[in-house]
Amino acid sequence: MPYPTVACGCEKRVVFPGRFQPVHKGHAHALGWLSGRFDEIIVVVGSAQKSHSVDNPFTAGERILMLREALREGGVDLSKFIFVPVPDIEYNSLWVRYVETLVPPFMYAASRNPLVKTLFEESGYKVVEPPVINRREYSGRFIRSLMLKGDESWRELVPSSVARIIDEVGGVARLRTVSGTDEEVS
Amino acid sequence: MPYPTVACGCEKRVVFPGRFQPVHKGHAHALGWLSGRFDEIIVVVGSAQKSHSVDNPFTAGERILMLREALREGGVDLSKFIFVPVPDIEYNSLWVRYVETLVPPFMYAASRNPLVKTLFEESGYKVVEPPVINRREYSGRFIRSLMLKGDESWRELVPSSVARIIDEVGGVARLRTVSGTDEEVS
Amino acid sequence: MPYPTVACGCEKRVVFPGRFQPVHKGHAHALGWLSGRFDEIIVVVGSAQKSHSVDNPFTAGERILMLREALREGGVDLSKFIFVPVPDIEYNSLWVRYVETLVPPFMYAASRNPLVKTLFEESGYKVVEPPVINRREYSGRFIRSLMLKGDESWRELVPSSVARIIDEVGGVARLRTVSGTDEEVS
Amino acid sequence: MPYPTVACGCEKRVVFPGRFQPVHKGHAHALGWLSGRFDEIIVVVGSAQKSHSVDNPFTAGERILMLREALREGGVDLSKFIFVPVPDIEYNSLWVRYVETLVPPFMYAASRNPLVKTLFEESGYKVVEPPVINRREYSGRFIRSLMLKGDESWRELVPSSVARIIDEVGGVARLRTVSGTDEEVS
Amino acid sequence: MPYPTVACGCEKRVVFPGRFQPVHKGHAHALGWLSGRFDEIIVVVGSAQKSHSVDNPFTAGERILMLREALREGGVDLSKFIFVPVPDIEYNSLWVRYVETLVPPFMYAASRNPLVKTLFEESGYKVVEPPVINRREYSGRFIRSLMLKGDESWRELVPSSVARIIDEVGGVARLRTVSGTDEEVS
Amino acid sequence: MPYPTVACGCEKRVVFPGRFQPVHKGHAHALGWLSGRFDEIIVVVGSAQKSHSVDNPFTAGERILMLREALREGGVDLSKFIFVPVPDIEYNSLWVRYVETLVPPFMYAASRNPLVKTLFEESGYKVVEPPVINRREYSGRFIRSLMLKGDESWRELVPSSVARIIDEVGGVARLRTVSGTDEEVS
Repeated sequence: MPYPTVACGCEKRVVFPGRFQPVHKGHAHALGWLSGRFDEIIVVVGSAQKSHSVDNPFTAGERILMLREALREGGVDLSKFIFVPVPDIEYNSLWVRYVETLVPPFMYAASRNPLVKTLFEESGYKVVEPPVINRREYSGRFIRSLMLKGDESWRELVPSSVARIIDEVGGVARLRTVSGTDEEVS
Repeated sequence: MPYPTVACGCEKRVVFPGRFQPVHKGHAHALGWLSGRFDEIIVVVGSAQKSHSVDNPFTAGERILMLREALREGGVDLSKFIFVPVPDIEYNSLWVRYVETLVPPFMYAASRNPLVKTLFEESGYKVVEPPVINRREYSGRFIRSLMLKGDESWRELVPSSVARIIDEVGGVARLRTVSGTDEEVS
Repeated sequence: MPYPTVACGCEKRVVFPGRFQPVHKGHAHALGWLSGRFDEIIVVVGSAQKSHSVDNPFTAGERILMLREALREGGVDLSKFIFVPVPDIEYNSLWVRYVETLVPPFMYAASRNPLVKTLFEESGYKVVEPPVINRREYSGRFIRSLMLKGDESWRELVPSSVARIIDEVGGVARLRTVSGTDEEVS
Repeated sequence: MPYPTVACGCEKRVVFPGRFQPVHKGHAHALGWLSGRFDEIIVVVGSAQKSHSVDNPFTAGERILMLREALREGGVDLSKFIFVPVPDIEYNSLWVRYVETLVPPFMYAASRNPLVKTLFEESGYKVVEPPVINRREYSGRFIRSLMLKGDESWRELVPSSVARIIDEVGGVARLRTVSGTDEEVS
Repeated sequence: MPYPTVACGCEKRVVFPGRFQPVHKGHAHALGWLSGRFDEIIVVVGSAQKSHSVDNPFTAGERILMLREALREGGVDLSKFIFVPVPDIEYNSLWVRYVETLVPPFMYAASRNPLVKTLFEESGYKVVEPPVINRREYSGRFIRSLMLKGDESWRELVPSSVARIIDEVGGVARLRTVSGTDEEVS
Repeated sequence: MPYPTVACGCEKRVVFPGRFQPVHKGHAHALGWLSGRFDEIIVVVGSAQKSHSVDNPFTAGERILMLREALREGGVDLSKFIFVPVPDIEYNSLWVRYVETLVPPFMYAASRNPLVKTLFEESGYKVVEPPVINRREYSGRFIRSLMLKGDESWRELVPSSVARIIDEVGGVARLRTVSGTDEEVS
């Protein structure tokens, strides 16, 4: 439930949900923008249960690691950030309420996604839209498609610390393996 | 488990499952037909966990409200009806058994859906098929497609009390918003 | 989320949660009292997933049947009532939000239970307390203890239609059987 | 659902549910008795999700290993046995139906537990009671209490192959550790 | 967790996961091949919760019955086999760990599926690939497509005991019914 | 799975699980001690789904807020900390594996709880025990008992920023209300 504006300490706290598969320079730009406008940024790592699939190759833990290293690389103050893995729940209508129970009180949500915006607005929150840069290329889907094609230019679209993490966990090989999976096991 | 016919009180009770996204005049017709043949009609509001999506824009609570107002509008005796929201469960093979634990004993199921009919028949129930009128237009999918196109003729396909509820909750705007949602959040 | 008082149709709708193991004359009295004050009463049948245990012998379906027959016996207008089975959820803090998605909009909750009252009040609802009569005897726990002892006086504490349903499903025998269950299966 | 007796192949198949924490000589005796009366014995390893607690120290996998080694030690024909780990489900009233979907068709259930017997009988199965020997000592609870006290006589109450498995996984140490756990973590 | 090679008894145990919708001659061939190389074969019947759908027509219990009868028909020693129904879990990254808790310790996994192989290898297991015969025709998907078309030649692709079970449960009719299901219930 | 020590970046990362109902000076001391020995401390807020009960009055979000404010009050560098709410899962044997998927790779776990230590050790982690100060009083259970008795001395046992948060959310009143709850709802 949205908190009263008087003395709740929530006026300068914002929730920023995403899937971050993987973290890219568009995310890094938005996080920097938010850190200049809010005291605390709660990054909701959505679909936390998903990994090892074409649309969601990385675990929630790997994605939190990417987010933190990208912020470090950008010189952003990590102490302002909270990272919360949130699995999908069955009830869309409950999702915002579910997030509320897992994070400190907040007054703003940051998103450009229509469903996410609608859900927060129907629950009484103010929504801000971080500016977008180069939306076509700074896109998880586009980056994963480059990886699948063997096109190394994906490396230019993510912070270099993220590229290093993806290399360490064998992310490109993992993505290509699961994309080759027959739908029918055995 | 189907109850014995002797003195169980279930001979005149029927289960009518549907998703009701939204309630339309075909549903209203079927409900009227059932109310003339059975003493109690248990309306199972299926996929109760779903809302705010293109195929399932309305919450279970909104759908129960639509059903009750549509019956009131049609002058049908509400006291004969029980409305039970039932979320999907993982096990198709258990679905009928799950419904059994949530509702009073019954002997009949009313459906034209092949899977629903098979599941009830494999569990020993008698299945009746409500008559269909104007199946092409009295269809949730068709009505939602009209809403998405901005075609106001959807209003003629639902009871006027349902149209009013959809207006009150901003249903058309909600549907169009979630249909514009990128699959990839953030 | 509590609905605006203007034209929402929720001003005269109340939620009444209970476990109803079994329905007793205290429940019947409260339901009658509520039916005189509200246009629609949403009876939430809680712990819907539980049955066949010492504290919860009856299924949700059996409890809905008891509620409807008790109201019929009392001459109360059934068309004003909605019966919704709601299983327990893991998150106490989400329970009211969960109920909201399953039922039509409401403005009031009726309960004397401190936790239930707190949860509804923290979510912005008005709470009413139905008058209590004979609280010591009109109590599910007390009635079940009589059944376990073989004391037939439980029959005087429930509406006669409820006693008949309990007899039909073999409720007393079931309760005594499960109470004899070793905690350790096999 | 109980299968028709004609040509279903289920007439000689029995379900035997237990927790087997740990497998003891009473279980071994019952399994031998069942193997002499049925063509196939489906051993349901219940509470499969539980382990590392005072009442349930062993994983489902460890318990299946114990069962198979105990049968081998007793010279019983393993090919007649099916071992199915089944986690607890929320709905007692659905438990038998849930087991039905996971195992081949059967006509009998073997148990001395009142709840288990009631659930199978309410679903239409025939229940047999394996003979009991030395019920006081051949009891999971009693054996675990000996282990907790450091009384080595528990070894006489289980097949020697089971004692060996318990030693290999460090079962007694594990049990004593978790029993020392403060209820409040950290 | 992979077990140490010294004296764990797991060196000759292999896990073989599949969906078996239905069991076909390719499966039978692989099972025979495995039985010649390992002491115990743990057959994981995956997607155990699914049935009555176009991709998953049969229940886990029906699939275990097929597996056992196919092995009997092939004269393979049933006592070496363990059959474990495993429902899908939300977390791909946890799936191997989940299987570990449900089955005796093992050192090998047998699969040709890229995702399955990756998941076991990332968890430290050795993967073997059973030889493939006639992969195009010995395929669950291909067999189901024949059934849907009414082409009786599917009978040549499964062991005759499996064809008999499919006939007994009305498998072809069930498959064709659920394939005719409108996506939108009611 | 424990990560290799070579270049994994996990050598200086530790997991610290707790329930923090509420955060007290013992926690603050342990967190300070850990911050002097590790580069990153992952605080797992356990039983994240629980709130509004006698043993678990506060939501996960409230507990994360307490933790961060306590660290700020103590002048500890927040940028070294990650706070992850983790609900209980059914499988004790999977709990460590579940945590692994939600957090960056780590090599150490910090706990004095026997079950927690056993679970991490069985999964191959090194366990450290933070020093304890005043264990009898710096205890969640003891502090909650003081609150229930109306003894204001609980304020001396928690950081003052935590006392302020508890006041703001009405924590003492909430605790006393839920403790007065009849076990039987309605």
